[in-house]
Amino acid sequence: MFVHIVFFWLKNPEEQANHDALKAGLDSLTGIDAITTVYIGTPADTRRPVIDHSYDFNLTMVFADKAAHDAYQEHPLHLAFVEKCAHLWERVHIYDAVS
Amino acid sequence: MFVHIVFFWLKNPEEQANHDALKAGLDSLTGIDAITTVYIGTPADTRRPVIDHSYDFNLTMVFADKAAHDAYQEHPLHLAFVEKCAHLWERVHIYDAVS
Repeated sequence: MFVHIVFFWLKNPEEQANHDALKAGLDSLTGIDAITTVYIGTPADTRRPVIDHSYDFNLTMVFADKAAHDAYQEHPLHLAFVEKCAHLWERVHIYDAVS
Repeated sequence: MFVHIVFFWLKNPEEQANHDALKAGLDSLTGIDAITTVYIGTPADTRRPVIDHSYDFNLTMVFADKAAHDAYQEHPLHLAFVEKCAHLWERVHIYDAVS
């Protein structure tokens, strides 16, 4: 499996419209058939020193393999999402893990 | 859903025995029935400035809800894993996301 984990920090997290716009953009990705499973979440209320809850959205995607992940990266819905939503975030942090 | 994402940095990443011991410890967690799905991975070979591939292991767990996550945290197999393996890692970074 190939797990693609993305964290987004909004430029203006205090603006609900920006939350809504990024959430809508993330939801638009779920139709991409290269994805096996996708989870779109926001920070849980768990609080320990080792827990980072500073982000605004998490996108965790599971793919069958790297080829499926690469197909997702080039998919028109993904490219449209980046073009439409990139102005909303200040920072993105990504981890890719294979097993 | 409740997604629990953990990254581990080994104290001695150059020692294969430490890799193997942590991998065995992580594998021992998969028998905990509170978990819906679990992925245990190592860094993919993707390389972009926004991608963090500095970690040694990723553990991504999906739970039905926070109650299931909390049951996992207190499960004897999880407590045994921490007791047995905590000396192996230098740093742990956790993100919890709910949807």
